[in-house]
Amino acid sequence: MSLLVVGSVAFDSVETPTATRDNVLGGSATFFSYAASYFTSVRLVGVVGEDWPSEHTKLLSDQGIDTSGLQVVPGAKTFRWRGKYEPNMNDRETLEIHLNVFETFDPVIPDSYQDCQYVFLANGSPVIQMKVLDQVPQAKLKVADTMDLWINMQRDELCAMLKRIDGLVLNDAEAKLLTGDENLVRAGHKVREMGPKFVVIKKGEHGAMFFSQDETYVMPAYPTPDVVDPTGAGDSFAGGMMGYLTEQRDHSPATLKQALAYGTVVASYNVEDFSLDRMRAIGRDDLEARLKDYRQMLSF
Amino acid sequence: MSLLVVGSVAFDSVETPTATRDNVLGGSATFFSYAASYFTSVRLVGVVGEDWPSEHTKLLSDQGIDTSGLQVVPGAKTFRWRGKYEPNMNDRETLEIHLNVFETFDPVIPDSYQDCQYVFLANGSPVIQMKVLDQVPQAKLKVADTMDLWINMQRDELCAMLKRIDGLVLNDAEAKLLTGDENLVRAGHKVREMGPKFVVIKKGEHGAMFFSQDETYVMPAYPTPDVVDPTGAGDSFAGGMMGYLTEQRDHSPATLKQALAYGTVVASYNVEDFSLDRMRAIGRDDLEARLKDYRQMLSF
Repeated sequence: MSLLVVGSVAFDSVETPTATRDNVLGGSATFFSYAASYFTSVRLVGVVGEDWPSEHTKLLSDQGIDTSGLQVVPGAKTFRWRGKYEPNMNDRETLEIHLNVFETFDPVIPDSYQDCQYVFLANGSPVIQMKVLDQVPQAKLKVADTMDLWINMQRDELCAMLKRIDGLVLNDAEAKLLTGDENLVRAGHKVREMGPKFVVIKKGEHGAMFFSQDETYVMPAYPTPDVVDPTGAGDSFAGGMMGYLTEQRDHSPATLKQALAYGTVVASYNVEDFSLDRMRAIGRDDLEARLKDYRQMLSF
Repeated sequence: MSLLVVGSVAFDSVETPTATRDNVLGGSATFFSYAASYFTSVRLVGVVGEDWPSEHTKLLSDQGIDTSGLQVVPGAKTFRWRGKYEPNMNDRETLEIHLNVFETFDPVIPDSYQDCQYVFLANGSPVIQMKVLDQVPQAKLKVADTMDLWINMQRDELCAMLKRIDGLVLNDAEAKLLTGDENLVRAGHKVREMGPKFVVIKKGEHGAMFFSQDETYVMPAYPTPDVVDPTGAGDSFAGGMMGYLTEQRDHSPATLKQALAYGTVVASYNVEDFSLDRMRAIGRDDLEARLKDYRQMLSF
């Protein structure tokens, strides 16, 4: 079983209170793919410019990620983002954003991807997300991410998109912005009433909340003392979650909860170094060990 | 087995985005006592002025809280606090504070309380907290709270006090202030290395973290959609925790974790109305029902 992800592939420049990295491998679909690849084969659709080094593609394909859907646009530049983290390592400021090739990204799902039943629409315009949905009529689980930009600029399109997906993943500030409700429990259910069968609100260092018609729960973040770079935490969380669901070929309530736990654990590793560096250094056995620890932590 | 608490008893005035209450029953020792009273008999030491209505004392004693240690100072006024909550209901601003009788509070532990083996020093000056410790040599578990004021103004005294207690409860901002570390996992252990065998960091709507030499864990807050007034959440959390430990006559790691869960559940009820109103409307059976739900929420 394969998992399809459509989203950004980028060069990130990251400033933290103690270190800086320039032009490292980043992007929502990149973090997502790598995180999901511990669990299942992943098929990536994205776009880069001719400044994209082939080593980056090789790094992903060596991990079993199918990059045949990664378009390379001649004469164009890859999406670049620069951000700076506050001392708390939870809040950040975007210093520069150059959409470049991502601005006109019009994803085409290759024929060879047409059998993907699990689909994740990483952050992107809801118009583009709906174009992808049009191309995956066979999908049995469609989950999307969104962000403040689309809530503010394309609310109608976002609302239309929400009616076509099974699950939405967004962060706490975005859930409050979308619903106008400052209480996250109420906000989560209000988002759910806009269409998706389930909603996951990411709270950064404070974990994630899950909402379905029958369930409301919170899972704390795994408490790591080694937070080096939180970039990609939300995407690696979603990647771990969707990867596990794809591996299990199931999204029943019990499997979804397990999936959130795996997502939590993958994200906790991801923040321990810049770019994909920490995730590259671990394997499924590390995830299982930390998951066991996490489960023990929550047992009383 | 009895639990001794020494702390403030106050009139609170609370402004939330949707409602306001003036001069309602409040204070750290008040919330703590009521929360603990579901589990054990409680003995309260505090001070009020002659403006204190006897109904408030009756409300506590009707719940089985021994108020013989509540000094009433003639011609003086009770501690008053006024605060305003942000729309997120997690951050607040203190608008007015009148220490009144609490400014010269010199707690005397009545002879009848001398057999208390479980002691909680609610928020107060570390100098006063140490005066209490001098009076309870028999105590087998001594836990304290503190706040930014004492970290800034009486750091040396606070550090001396920390060497004399078994556990410290403080909030996330205070842990960062005390240690200068923005990572809560590291900050928690740094506080522990200052003296207490265990440390609990309260994170408001995001739950609590526990630190001992052998354990680090996080427990999320119970997700209630009905947050009416967060005042006293931290004190009722500590009350539930200490009440359960006293009931069990034990503070082994497993019992401590259960105690944090009970504290979480009591606090989640407390925030559902102003003052003690929600806690007054519930009983132990409600706590058990919500605890069961909370445990289920964290099982995967």
